[in-house]
Amino acid sequence: MALIVQKYGGTSVGSVERIHRVADRVKRWTDQGHRVVVVLSAMSGETDRLIGLAKQIQERPEPRELDVLLSTGEQVTIALLSMALAAKGCPARSYTGGQVHILTDSAHNKARIRDIDAARVRADLDAGRVVVIAGFQGIDEHGDITTLGRGGSDTSAVAIAAALTADECQIYTDVDGVYTTDPRVEPKARKLDRITFEEMLEMASLGSKVLQIRSVEFAGKYRVPLRVLSSFDEGEGTLITFEEDIVEDAKISGIAFSRDEAKLTVLGVPDQPGVAHRILGPIADANIEVDMIIQNIADQAATTDFTFTVHRNDYARALEILQGMAQALGARQVLGDARIVKISLVGVGMRSHAGIASQMFASLAGEGINIRMISTSEIKISVVVDEKYLELGVRTLHEAFGLDRDPTL
Amino acid sequence: MALIVQKYGGTSVGSVERIHRVADRVKRWTDQGHRVVVVLSAMSGETDRLIGLAKQIQERPEPRELDVLLSTGEQVTIALLSMALAAKGCPARSYTGGQVHILTDSAHNKARIRDIDAARVRADLDAGRVVVIAGFQGIDEHGDITTLGRGGSDTSAVAIAAALTADECQIYTDVDGVYTTDPRVEPKARKLDRITFEEMLEMASLGSKVLQIRSVEFAGKYRVPLRVLSSFDEGEGTLITFEEDIVEDAKISGIAFSRDEAKLTVLGVPDQPGVAHRILGPIADANIEVDMIIQNIADQAATTDFTFTVHRNDYARALEILQGMAQALGARQVLGDARIVKISLVGVGMRSHAGIASQMFASLAGEGINIRMISTSEIKISVVVDEKYLELGVRTLHEAFGLDRDPTL
Repeated sequence: MALIVQKYGGTSVGSVERIHRVADRVKRWTDQGHRVVVVLSAMSGETDRLIGLAKQIQERPEPRELDVLLSTGEQVTIALLSMALAAKGCPARSYTGGQVHILTDSAHNKARIRDIDAARVRADLDAGRVVVIAGFQGIDEHGDITTLGRGGSDTSAVAIAAALTADECQIYTDVDGVYTTDPRVEPKARKLDRITFEEMLEMASLGSKVLQIRSVEFAGKYRVPLRVLSSFDEGEGTLITFEEDIVEDAKISGIAFSRDEAKLTVLGVPDQPGVAHRILGPIADANIEVDMIIQNIADQAATTDFTFTVHRNDYARALEILQGMAQALGARQVLGDARIVKISLVGVGMRSHAGIASQMFASLAGEGINIRMISTSEIKISVVVDEKYLELGVRTLHEAFGLDRDPTL
Repeated sequence: MALIVQKYGGTSVGSVERIHRVADRVKRWTDQGHRVVVVLSAMSGETDRLIGLAKQIQERPEPRELDVLLSTGEQVTIALLSMALAAKGCPARSYTGGQVHILTDSAHNKARIRDIDAARVRADLDAGRVVVIAGFQGIDEHGDITTLGRGGSDTSAVAIAAALTADECQIYTDVDGVYTTDPRVEPKARKLDRITFEEMLEMASLGSKVLQIRSVEFAGKYRVPLRVLSSFDEGEGTLITFEEDIVEDAKISGIAFSRDEAKLTVLGVPDQPGVAHRILGPIADANIEVDMIIQNIADQAATTDFTFTVHRNDYARALEILQGMAQALGARQVLGDARIVKISLVGVGMRSHAGIASQMFASLAGEGINIRMISTSEIKISVVVDEKYLELGVRTLHEAFGLDRDPTL
């Protein structure tokens, strides 16, 4: 008799037939005596269709009005699922974000949840109903409609699970769990039964698209047990849990990678205090996010080389900014490379195991893969390599760290 | 410096280009210093699309959930129009029915407006903004979304105009006003500059589809000056006003007609108290609305003939009910005819002019049109004739009462 929050993404509710399948799945849970709250995204493609419509009207749509527009997408799916549930003899009620007072700040198109009034939801659950809530949306203190940004429905689900102190928050998607790496790159990739929140955060931030990163942070903060599973198959999925729960002692849980990287280097800048700020300040002012940053020690000429990475979409603009200020910085040259990728080993086990980094570098060297940049955190080691080595690098590391073998065997 | 409520129907906001045209029109009013509240319908076809989707899920969709679904249609158009206005330098804000507290009863799919909180609207108007409100929808006292039924946006506009004590409520549609009769039947039909509320009510209830009848009742009750005009052309449209304002002394304002009629006759029932109730009770129990009712005086055999009309869609069911109880009633025979139409003369001038009815009957007789039933009210005379005489009858009366001539000349 658990209280479960289930979130279904756009592809899971992308057609009438799929909505019926979601209703069947929800009903199986209620038939077993569980209380279920469902959080839905818009039908796949609908949000893009609405954005397209808005851009035909106004090149940069008013953020407040865009939220009024986009929030209709989930309002359609919650109504349809509630009908499908009712048709199967499973009483249900739909609510928009505003109706269950998902209070957010007023940052339209990227609002953050502040509070949820769970009383109305609880009243319906107590009356034996399934509650179907529109994800991705809320209202601010003025009663204006807000949206949480792409993938925000995951965050809605976690926030609702936290507010209800649900037993589990289940994120149904089109993959059946979190994998050791992307199976399209490494066919031997293995589904993980469990992963820690910290690992999931690193995996998500490194481009594993299974969960929106903010929802993982939220779940970690409020200690909501989170499970990723497929809405098309049966199966236990992957439980995202707290470190102390993990019994396996795998050093590495997975390999994440990101193709959308570009790096920029300013060569021979005088090594003076404040140089990093003078280089990165204008980049930040242009709203370009910087990921890895490396500064070499000064050479005999008292100059240094400064390298950082940005999203590939921002590469041209960042290069232009650096070239425009190279002379003022006294730099010798500005170099750039948009054909690089980042590969990262992720694992909480890394903390207590020395030698992971050297094993990683040795494996890559063994295949002739030159490492361009290195960056590390508590539970992650990232390397930047040439784009052409992405698949080879991932497969090499997957095998070197034994990720294709089930650690419980 | 007037306060104007403008309502645009589905065809007026049916495309991006048309939404821009509506924005242009609204801006012309604000540029002249007027304060404008806009009430919108969903894009034409959208409500039917959503109903179709719902019916694919559930044969008879849950009324509460259908309202959650349908209300998205107007939410899309209010956001898009607000963007279009902003793009033209005309600040605007959109609101759903719930956001401006259009409080209704809980009769989902056909709710009635009880109250409107105009404070938020006034605050925006005072700040120099256009306020764009979703028509057709409201919320009930539980915060559930409701809709007002087909054509409900007209009622929303009138209710908002009443709550704001607006100077005028303008209903923009795809016709340029109210005509003496349907121009598709009588090409000489003439647009009226003014018509009284009572006449408009009769015209609307008799099948002139320009305005939803409930909105006319509402406007009459709260004395909201209502104007019907085209969103595609310029022009003054038709002002629907109060009788004392009318200066023209035309006896007849227009000719309405309805094609969807059918009549049923119970012949030779014993003329006893309660017979009308025994006949019409089961009809009412089957939710069939009865329009005209005629009972002849008893003949020498102390039996009477009882005739009434129903909507043509209900004809087969009504006939079945009557046939099932003919024996119990002691009736000689049950007759029916689904190929009849109703033609009505409407005009407040009728009250003070004798002889209208006889002039009407004489004109029809002159063309060999046999009258099957007659019914009268204070400002209306209706006749039922064979379907084949509809066009001839309308044109004959249009000419006989000089409706093609401008009475102000």
